[in-house]
Amino acid sequence: MERQELEQIVASVVNRIQSGTAGAAGKAPLQNKNISLEAAKDLIAKVEAKAKSMGVNAVIAVSNAGANPVAVHCMDNSYIASYDIAVNKAYTVVALKMPTSKLKGLSQPGEPLYGIQHTNQGRIVIFGGGAPLVVGDDIIGGLGVSGGSEEQDTALAEYGKEVLKEVISWL
Amino acid sequence: MERQELEQIVASVVNRIQSGTAGAAGKAPLQNKNISLEAAKDLIAKVEAKAKSMGVNAVIAVSNAGANPVAVHCMDNSYIASYDIAVNKAYTVVALKMPTSKLKGLSQPGEPLYGIQHTNQGRIVIFGGGAPLVVGDDIIGGLGVSGGSEEQDTALAEYGKEVLKEVISWL
Amino acid sequence: MERQELEQIVASVVNRIQSGTAGAAGKAPLQNKNISLEAAKDLIAKVEAKAKSMGVNAVIAVSNAGANPVAVHCMDNSYIASYDIAVNKAYTVVALKMPTSKLKGLSQPGEPLYGIQHTNQGRIVIFGGGAPLVVGDDIIGGLGVSGGSEEQDTALAEYGKEVLKEVISWL
Amino acid sequence: MERQELEQIVASVVNRIQSGTAGAAGKAPLQNKNISLEAAKDLIAKVEAKAKSMGVNAVIAVSNAGANPVAVHCMDNSYIASYDIAVNKAYTVVALKMPTSKLKGLSQPGEPLYGIQHTNQGRIVIFGGGAPLVVGDDIIGGLGVSGGSEEQDTALAEYGKEVLKEVISWL
Repeated sequence: MERQELEQIVASVVNRIQSGTAGAAGKAPLQNKNISLEAAKDLIAKVEAKAKSMGVNAVIAVSNAGANPVAVHCMDNSYIASYDIAVNKAYTVVALKMPTSKLKGLSQPGEPLYGIQHTNQGRIVIFGGGAPLVVGDDIIGGLGVSGGSEEQDTALAEYGKEVLKEVISWL
Repeated sequence: MERQELEQIVASVVNRIQSGTAGAAGKAPLQNKNISLEAAKDLIAKVEAKAKSMGVNAVIAVSNAGANPVAVHCMDNSYIASYDIAVNKAYTVVALKMPTSKLKGLSQPGEPLYGIQHTNQGRIVIFGGGAPLVVGDDIIGGLGVSGGSEEQDTALAEYGKEVLKEVISWL
Repeated sequence: MERQELEQIVASVVNRIQSGTAGAAGKAPLQNKNISLEAAKDLIAKVEAKAKSMGVNAVIAVSNAGANPVAVHCMDNSYIASYDIAVNKAYTVVALKMPTSKLKGLSQPGEPLYGIQHTNQGRIVIFGGGAPLVVGDDIIGGLGVSGGSEEQDTALAEYGKEVLKEVISWL
Repeated sequence: MERQELEQIVASVVNRIQSGTAGAAGKAPLQNKNISLEAAKDLIAKVEAKAKSMGVNAVIAVSNAGANPVAVHCMDNSYIASYDIAVNKAYTVVALKMPTSKLKGLSQPGEPLYGIQHTNQGRIVIFGGGAPLVVGDDIIGGLGVSGGSEEQDTALAEYGKEVLKEVISWL
């Protein structure tokens, strides 16, 4: 057995103990696990580096499992409006458990969720650039990116979702 | 005669007297009759059981004849955003006297009520999942469900509307 | 050796380490544990019974560890305004980690937090009737009560805080 | 010569050239100079370390000369409510060009600015924990801290104001 695998198993068991379900068989559920500030900062740094390489000045926001903000960085010369948009994207993806790029399709005129952008005090964003941060079956937070084209923001959010595992110490 | 049965008869007579139809044959009209918390909780319990059987984690809200909330339950692991949406659906169906699935058609671009979602501090929901709670000719409250697909939410709201008569003691 | 078997062995070792006694499981810390809908409903039922015995028609709200609503009940003939107040009290006590009766003192003119009721989109309530729901060192949710005098609301919130342990199955 | 020292000299010369005072003796004027994300992150890191040493879990926000957010960090286990409060403090100190601890006195009942907390969509914070970030005669941004007692938040904001010069490369 590799050391890394063993570490993952121990981490998973410790997590179960902390969440009051120690001894349960099978996969360790990570219930209500919140992303930490440290992990959020590391994740933002990675997305920021990627944005720079794409020539995008982005605002990058991370929320936790309760859809509350953890960290927000506004790259120099990013849009002033992007702050609210990024923070709200990070809220939306946790509150609705889906990327904002998926919500985009569902909220067009005639589609099932048309009008949803008005239901939560204007905090629901219905265009790309937000991605839930997922560990196993659990959403531990959300990532919101705003500043480039919709394609760029979506790509950056997806990138962040992918590199999440590199910044979570208990994985 | 049981005490409970007697109480119901007295309540029904008092209600008829108050609404000016005492002595009239048949069903008593229910003017400004509000759904009670007890009935709202029973109704929510039925909708919750149905949602569980469909694999949906829903937020279920009931408003009264004044479009004000009576009870709201958020099933475990329901969407955070669903709270506002369910409460607002329960508001919408009383405020506009129609199911939100009907309002959906009327509020599309080019249709009569296009833009209505902006007129009431963002409380008007224009997609399915809300149903007025009707007794005779009266709307005694509203039911808002959010958490599944639009089809599921609409089905759950319709289900709740149908089983209303099982939870109203004065019917 | 199977993964599951190994996990159980590690769990027992970690348990021994944490508890300091061989074989004994000890109390599991509850990090980021959220109150469930079931527990929230049971808690509200107890507070509602208490309110009835005091002649108070209250709105009773429970939020979770993310300050998001779990359940709200409006007793018949409660104040319409009490809905927002109770929900916001349940938000406030988690968001600020203190009872609203304590915040009351801190937010008076000349006191340290004077003006705090304007900082969170009007969601901070600065009078009694809200209590954090605490398990060990963790806030697992919040309780907001509105409908009686401030003394009555405060007493009901404190009552709910005390009986919490009777409704949490994992205690 | 150290690399850091060299960088500072070059930055200072470039800055003088850009501001039209190249070759002139003395400090370069800093018109409409905004704090950068890099400097904001460094400043927040210093304040965070100080907060940790004081046992405070703080939300720390930095705004720029336009009173718009640059970066926000929520330390683990900080108050949920502190996010809005810290961001709004960072806004307030630039918008009104004074520390929030000074505004506190001016906004008490009977004082000149009583009521100002209602004038800017609830974004004005009238208790301590916010400090303008000043370079020469210019406000280049604002610092908002929330999470400890008012004294602690005020001390942390003042601390941040003092160490600003350590994180601005062009000073």
